[in-house]
Amino acid sequence: MSEPILLPHPVRIAARASAVGGDEYRGPLGPLFDFHDESDRFGADTWEKAEGELGRTVCNLLLARAGLSHRDVDLLFAGDLQNQCMASVCGLSGFGIPYFGLYGACSTFVEGILLASLALTATGNIRRVAVITTSHNCAAERQFRLPLEYGGQRPPTAQWTATAGGALLLDRGEGGVGVTALLAGRMVDSGLTDASNMGAAMAPAAADTLLRYFDATREDPAGYDAIVTGDLGSEGSGILSELLAARGLSLGARHIDCGMLLYDRTRQDAHAGASGCGCSAAVTAAHILPMMERGEMRRVLLMATGALMSPSGIQQGCPIVGIAPLARLEVSGI
Amino acid sequence: MSEPILLPHPVRIAARASAVGGDEYRGPLGPLFDFHDESDRFGADTWEKAEGELGRTVCNLLLARAGLSHRDVDLLFAGDLQNQCMASVCGLSGFGIPYFGLYGACSTFVEGILLASLALTATGNIRRVAVITTSHNCAAERQFRLPLEYGGQRPPTAQWTATAGGALLLDRGEGGVGVTALLAGRMVDSGLTDASNMGAAMAPAAADTLLRYFDATREDPAGYDAIVTGDLGSEGSGILSELLAARGLSLGARHIDCGMLLYDRTRQDAHAGASGCGCSAAVTAAHILPMMERGEMRRVLLMATGALMSPSGIQQGCPIVGIAPLARLEVSGI
Repeated sequence: MSEPILLPHPVRIAARASAVGGDEYRGPLGPLFDFHDESDRFGADTWEKAEGELGRTVCNLLLARAGLSHRDVDLLFAGDLQNQCMASVCGLSGFGIPYFGLYGACSTFVEGILLASLALTATGNIRRVAVITTSHNCAAERQFRLPLEYGGQRPPTAQWTATAGGALLLDRGEGGVGVTALLAGRMVDSGLTDASNMGAAMAPAAADTLLRYFDATREDPAGYDAIVTGDLGSEGSGILSELLAARGLSLGARHIDCGMLLYDRTRQDAHAGASGCGCSAAVTAAHILPMMERGEMRRVLLMATGALMSPSGIQQGCPIVGIAPLARLEVSGI
Repeated sequence: MSEPILLPHPVRIAARASAVGGDEYRGPLGPLFDFHDESDRFGADTWEKAEGELGRTVCNLLLARAGLSHRDVDLLFAGDLQNQCMASVCGLSGFGIPYFGLYGACSTFVEGILLASLALTATGNIRRVAVITTSHNCAAERQFRLPLEYGGQRPPTAQWTATAGGALLLDRGEGGVGVTALLAGRMVDSGLTDASNMGAAMAPAAADTLLRYFDATREDPAGYDAIVTGDLGSEGSGILSELLAARGLSLGARHIDCGMLLYDRTRQDAHAGASGCGCSAAVTAAHILPMMERGEMRRVLLMATGALMSPSGIQQGCPIVGIAPLARLEVSGI
């Protein structure tokens, strides 16, 4: 799968749901999210459990929107940023949907879309699949970086892990927004070890995926209404642009980064932008897909970007490896 | 996928490789593994990186046995027990094979087989897929339980995380051992919180999967040469047997547990047996599959079992949720 997989039949995105915390609600996309909790606690007594509740919330919202029960969903692909995907287990075990736990750091949302699309393509016995990813600022920051209480100063390259979750329901129905092509990400090690510069670690992987996609398909970026990256932020988006320019590829104004949409850079202290595997999930569910449903965009490349780092890896000086899986979304019959 | 997926065409297990540490080499299956390192270090300077090297070793062994280069493998499904799947990233990023990171605790090996089989069934563009999982006793114990230097006494229900790794290459070739049916695991929460009793946390999930399998297929366990569980150990195997008996199902002597095969209970201080996502991978690659290749077994149910726990979950008193994905393996053309 170094080359894109063109699906013989589009996999339909049949429903979507999103939920966010207070900072994300106060950002430019705030009113678009289905649910928010100003306190970021979602009724739980720890930040880690709060992220679990966030996942449960988007799963319930998704089922309600689709008019389905958990028994109607054949498979669940889910993941988060916590060690051993604890939030997904905590929040989603009660639904009893057969489960695949994923870890692609901030790229897990599109990792899930790819695997869900392959599962739906493989057999007619799998009718509906849910993809759910979450992240929580307070759980992630104290796990990967510093205790929250320390109040350390963040460098300008740092991103703000989003308190956000997104959920999609995929099936084999006709019309609407469909996944039509997939490209799995490769792990790209650029030797970076700075846990406060995710953008630089992810941009080379994003470039690798886009170059492979356009080399193989011989398509022109101009054929897309938007090329959406997950959470490169301002730092990573700039590096991606330079890396692609060196290979003669320009995305121009059609490049949109979910991490740069979530917070207001002039009002909110988010530095290089948002990150976290809830960021691309919530922005896609609340903003990108509705634009496609309204016909404002018809062809979109959605590429989440992940920095595959771990607390013990950082302590041991391991490089932060990037990865960027990609899905092509297209509107039909609208 | 509450019901088994019967694959329209078997997915062939084209090659296999395994590697273990010193304790595993001194166990009853020792001579069967392709590689061992008496020191458990695999040339690395930390236990976490040693597990990465173990993964790299089985990947290289797999490619060598298959006579392939990393460029010939279209997808890699991999995972381990370390937080954020650090061992897989450390050990496998250099191969450049498009990657899906998985986390199913000790069940990750069969989670990978299921997803690899779905990917190969979905499209002819995916020709060969590798599944690799690893675990390392020293990395896992200090992460999930106590610092190694503490030398704490372990209760009789405790299992010994295996220092082991296994790798499979799957393709769509004819003959040999093939994957013919799949059943995804559901997360089963039995309210257990004891990190030293994984068997009790996993057994209810194992029972859930087997009962769903036999209910849906109306098959008889007697139709199988072996029903192999990943690493229930002696404690979990006993509980599984009781749970199934209460529902009128008996596996009898055809139940084999990889966790009970790896160490010698009379000579090695492994308490309830082996665990870790390298356990089922290495035992399957070195022992179960060769028996099938020699025609000593023709029909096998392979069900890995995972306890979806995390260090922060344990600290916060979260229940340890079990999961047990299943693959049916059958011999054809031998």
